Amino acid sequence: NHMNPVCVHNPHLESLKDDILYHFSLGTETHDLPAMFGDVKFVCVGGSPWRMKAFTEYIAAELAMEDPKSEYPNICAGTDRYAMYKVGPVLSVSHGMGIPSIAIMLHELIKLLYHAHCKDVTIFRIGTSGGIGLEPGTVVVTRQSVDATFEPKFEQVILGKTVLRNTDLDQSLAEELLQCSKELGQFETVIGNTMCTLDFYEGQARLDGAFCSYSEKDKRDYLIKAKEAGVCNIEMESSVFSAMCKLSGLRAAVVCVTLLDRLKGDQVISSHEVLNDFQKRPQILVGCFIKKQLMTKAQPS
Amino acid sequence: NHMNPVCVHNPHLESLKDDILYHFSLGTETHDLPAMFGDVKFVCVGGSPWRMKAFTEYIAAELAMEDPKSEYPNICAGTDRYAMYKVGPVLSVSHGMGIPSIAIMLHELIKLLYHAHCKDVTIFRIGTSGGIGLEPGTVVVTRQSVDATFEPKFEQVILGKTVLRNTDLDQSLAEELLQCSKELGQFETVIGNTMCTLDFYEGQARLDGAFCSYSEKDKRDYLIKAKEAGVCNIEMESSVFSAMCKLSGLRAAVVCVTLLDRLKGDQVISSHEVLNDFQKRPQILVGCFIKKQLMTKAQPS
Repeated sequence: NHMNPVCVHNPHLESLKDDILYHFSLGTETHDLPAMFGDVKFVCVGGSPWRMKAFTEYIAAELAMEDPKSEYPNICAGTDRYAMYKVGPVLSVSHGMGIPSIAIMLHELIKLLYHAHCKDVTIFRIGTSGGIGLEPGTVVVTRQSVDATFEPKFEQVILGKTVLRNTDLDQSLAEELLQCSKELGQFETVIGNTMCTLDFYEGQARLDGAFCSYSEKDKRDYLIKAKEAGVCNIEMESSVFSAMCKLSGLRAAVVCVTLLDRLKGDQVISSHEVLNDFQKRPQILVGCFIKKQLMTKAQPS
Repeated sequence: NHMNPVCVHNPHLESLKDDILYHFSLGTETHDLPAMFGDVKFVCVGGSPWRMKAFTEYIAAELAMEDPKSEYPNICAGTDRYAMYKVGPVLSVSHGMGIPSIAIMLHELIKLLYHAHCKDVTIFRIGTSGGIGLEPGTVVVTRQSVDATFEPKFEQVILGKTVLRNTDLDQSLAEELLQCSKELGQFETVIGNTMCTLDFYEGQARLDGAFCSYSEKDKRDYLIKAKEAGVCNIEMESSVFSAMCKLSGLRAAVVCVTLLDRLKGDQVISSHEVLNDFQKRPQILVGCFIKKQLMTKAQPS
């Protein structure tokens, strides 16, 4: 019975009397983190605080753990940087937009899980993305997160020097999620590479930002090259998510729905209702996976 | 009487029938942007939505424009990506944390001001930062935003290639803000360089992240080198803010309070009350500047 702890790699943490998780408004001296989070087995993160609250309500209903009398309180109510919700073994945290925003959250989340002595944790990023040559609404489970030159690496700057980090994700977890989608039969899911950029407009070759110095053909050529490199979708957090989860021993998956086909346009023009339906798909897929895992565990062996 | 319009640099925008500012939940077909925003002369942006609402309430009181019966509604209530408030000629917008998050907001803000035909707009980023060798609570008005190697440049990736952009800010505006601080006499303000990083922990040489591969001496040596290069404080948005404001013809300043002295520690340990007081200082300084500008204009010439 091997248990995988959540790892930090920082010899300085031991000498901290109180570790303040500043952007969560939590700390080791002010909060009993093992009591609050020791039972966490699944973490789901996503950009929007509203979506992460909706995920918690959804998963509570799926696991029949909902308490109709209680709202799910925001555990990080002391700050407006991130929102955090918990139901049973499932923790849900928002991360804002872009690599720096999710990186701050992940540093503090990894320390939180470490201080809480969590074991065997699986983590999902659920999000939205632009697709390349896919029908809008398709869910992409990421094989590898690649940068704007289609290389599977994340560049971390440390003391002014760039260090390269691996962006591999757990392939068996991706396959299990694909299997869940087949069993659900509600929407298309594919496994493919995800390009992670530092910018939504010029960084993703959009023609509709405040600045644009390239032609429609330049844009198309770039996206076609991305597609030829195996890129199925584009978002803004997967590279550092993959790199940090790998370093800390978290089993990780990136599950993003495509809101549009970037070969056909740049603006998100679908109706509010359609977009709402699309945004639920990663939640449904991850919810199905978590439910299966918990049911398997509950069976007598 | 020269009027400076807010510029976009994108020939493709003209052909868009409806320009959807997706992350604001606003658009040119659904909203009368000139009527809603045509009178904007000052824009104040900051990471936290709570702080931007507080700024609007503060500036309304300062300008004697408050309406005690009305709350200030969030103009971007259709989304949770950013929050936006307006009182008279002052617009206040949150931008989240990090370069990608503020860049998305600025693309859409610049287009909003352009579509609204705004002229002679001054923009401020008010925020928090880590100081180097400054008493916590000191306000830093940025001379130049520099990167992690102390160079005054911002690297924008376009179609997979890196383009360098200038991060100069308006020096006369910085001097005018320093003058306001002298007249207020409430707190220390300095003009200096600001280092803008892609990460809060390893990127800023902190010893208290989930990962840390360097020693306390390595950290200290790096921060001392930064100080020798004129860096007074460290934050995560100023470089792209400076670059994009310059490209669009916005008169821009970065005004950040230091919450701690990084030469003495990494964690933000001041009390909630002290931190709250510190965070108000950039608001007070910018409020003073705006009030003076509006009073000068109102005087008969």
